[in-house]
Amino acid sequence: MTATVIDGKAFAAKVRGQVAEHVARLKEEHGITPGLAVVLVGEDPASQVYVRSKGKMTVECGMNSYEHKLPIDVSQEELYALLAKLNADPAVHGILCQFPVPAHLSETDIVAQIDPAKDVDGLHVINAGLLASGQKTLVSCTPLGCLMLLRDHLGSLSGKSAVIVGRSNLVGKPVAQLLLQDSCTVTIAHSRTKDLADVVRGADIVVAAVGRPEMVTGDWIKPGATVIDVGINRIDAPEKGLKEDGSVKTRLVGDCDYASCAEVAGAITPVPGGVGPMTIACLLANTVTACCRANGLAEPEGLTV
Amino acid sequence: MTATVIDGKAFAAKVRGQVAEHVARLKEEHGITPGLAVVLVGEDPASQVYVRSKGKMTVECGMNSYEHKLPIDVSQEELYALLAKLNADPAVHGILCQFPVPAHLSETDIVAQIDPAKDVDGLHVINAGLLASGQKTLVSCTPLGCLMLLRDHLGSLSGKSAVIVGRSNLVGKPVAQLLLQDSCTVTIAHSRTKDLADVVRGADIVVAAVGRPEMVTGDWIKPGATVIDVGINRIDAPEKGLKEDGSVKTRLVGDCDYASCAEVAGAITPVPGGVGPMTIACLLANTVTACCRANGLAEPEGLTV
Repeated sequence: MTATVIDGKAFAAKVRGQVAEHVARLKEEHGITPGLAVVLVGEDPASQVYVRSKGKMTVECGMNSYEHKLPIDVSQEELYALLAKLNADPAVHGILCQFPVPAHLSETDIVAQIDPAKDVDGLHVINAGLLASGQKTLVSCTPLGCLMLLRDHLGSLSGKSAVIVGRSNLVGKPVAQLLLQDSCTVTIAHSRTKDLADVVRGADIVVAAVGRPEMVTGDWIKPGATVIDVGINRIDAPEKGLKEDGSVKTRLVGDCDYASCAEVAGAITPVPGGVGPMTIACLLANTVTACCRANGLAEPEGLTV
Repeated sequence: MTATVIDGKAFAAKVRGQVAEHVARLKEEHGITPGLAVVLVGEDPASQVYVRSKGKMTVECGMNSYEHKLPIDVSQEELYALLAKLNADPAVHGILCQFPVPAHLSETDIVAQIDPAKDVDGLHVINAGLLASGQKTLVSCTPLGCLMLLRDHLGSLSGKSAVIVGRSNLVGKPVAQLLLQDSCTVTIAHSRTKDLADVVRGADIVVAAVGRPEMVTGDWIKPGATVIDVGINRIDAPEKGLKEDGSVKTRLVGDCDYASCAEVAGAITPVPGGVGPMTIACLLANTVTACCRANGLAEPEGLTV
C-alpha cells in the first residue's frame, strides 16, 4: 500500500482563497476590512522571515496588516502599552506577538495582555479554557490546521480512534481537545507511555507532535491509518554534500519516518508541505473569525471549529 | 480475585483531618482563618441538604462558613452584586454557588462572576484554561477527589494507561488533564467510541463518569485494574419492597456493575462511599489552598495537584 499524500500546501492555498472570499464579502456587504497586527521584538532573522511572510499573505487575502517592530531592549511597559493600544483599536481584529522574545520578557505574561477576542494565535489561558470546555474560542493555528486537514481528508471523524503522540500545550493537548470535540476516541501518548508503538498501532488517526526526528516508523502504523506529522526537525544531510562554508548540508524531516510510514498508512502529510503551510492559513482564518465576532456577524463557514 | 475496596469515606475523613491541621496552623502561625461562602438560590430540598452539610464540615475543620440564602426569584443583578461583594471580601477565600439555579439565571454566567482565585469549585473558564495548560489552578472537586484516591492507592501514576469513560466538562475532561499531568497514557472514551469494552479492557486505571447505571461490567475490566466509579445513579430496588406511599424503594448504584467488576479489578471504589465523600473534602482542601495563595503562603502539601 502506498499512502495518499495529504498536500498541505495546496489545501492551505485553498483555505487562503476562502479567507479572501470572506474578506471580499465583508468589505462589500459591511464595509469592514479585517486587520491583523503583528508585533516583532528584536531582529531575529528567522522571526523576520515569518513576520514578513505573514504580512504578505495577510495583504494578499485583502486584509490590513499592521507590523510593529520594537527594539530588542524594549521595556515590558512599552510593549504592554502597545498591546493595550492594539486591544483598543477597532481596526485591529487579530494581534500576535512573534515568539521567541528576548529573555527580559515573559511569553506567558505577554499573551495575558492580549484581548482573548483578538488572540488569533489561540494562546490566551481563557481561550485554552473555552476550548477545554467545548465553547467557542480562537483555536491555536497548528492544531486547527491538523483538524482541517483531517476533516478534509476523512469527512466525519466520529468514532475514529486517534492517538496523539506528544502532550505539549501548543499542539498535543489542543489537538486532543479538538478531536474529542469531533467525537474521536482520543489517546494522548508521550515519553512515559509504555509500549508506545503498540499504542500508536491501534489508531485510525495518528498525530505526531513530539519534536523527535523520524521517531514514528512504519511498523507503528495500522495499515490504512491517517498520519498527521506536525514535527519540523532539521537534521544533517551528508548525502547532499557540503555548504560553501564547509559545513554539512541539512534537510527538514518530520517526527515520522516518511518512507516507511507511507508504505503502511492510508494517507500521510509530508514534511515540509504538510501541516506547516496550514499554520499561517489558520492564522488568517482566525483573523476573519475574530473580525466577524467583533462585528456580530455570522462565523465564516469552514474556517472555524 | 476480589478487589480491594477503596474506602472513600475513610479517606475523605483523613483529608478533612489534614485540612483541619492546616487550618489550625494558619490560625496559630498567621492569625488567618480560611472562609468559605456558599450561595443558595431558592429552597430546593436536596440543595439545602448539600449546603447544610458543606457548612457543617467547613466549621468542623475550623474554618468560617458564610451561608447566603437568596429567594428563588432573586434578580441576576442582586446575585451578581452579592458575588462581587464576596469577591472583594478578604475574609472570604472560597465562593461557590450551589447548582442547579432557577431557569432565569445562567450557571455559566454566574461562575464567570466569581474571582477565579476564589472559585473553589474549579468551574471558571480561567481555571479550566490553567488546568489545560498545566499551570497552578483550583481543580474542581470531584476530579481532584479521583486523583487523590488514585495517588493514595497506587502511588506514582506515571506510565499507567488510564481510560476515562465520559467526556463531560465537570468530570471526564478535567480527570483526563489531571491524569495526563501525572504522566498516565490517557484515553477518553464516550458514547461514540467503537468497541468500548475493548478499549476499557486495555486500562490499568478506569474512571467511569457517564451517568449510566451499572454500564461497565466485569468483563470490561483488565484483571488487577483500579476502578474509580464516579457515577451516582438512583435506581428502583423492588427487592427492598415498597415505601409507605406505595412506591418502589430505590438504591444508589454507580456507573460500574460493582459485583462483577469487583471480581476482576485489583481495587474499586464503591457507590456510595467511594468518590462521593471526596467531593466535599476537596472543596474544603481547595478553600485552604485558595486562602494560602491569597496570603502568599506555601500551598498545603498533599491537598493540591
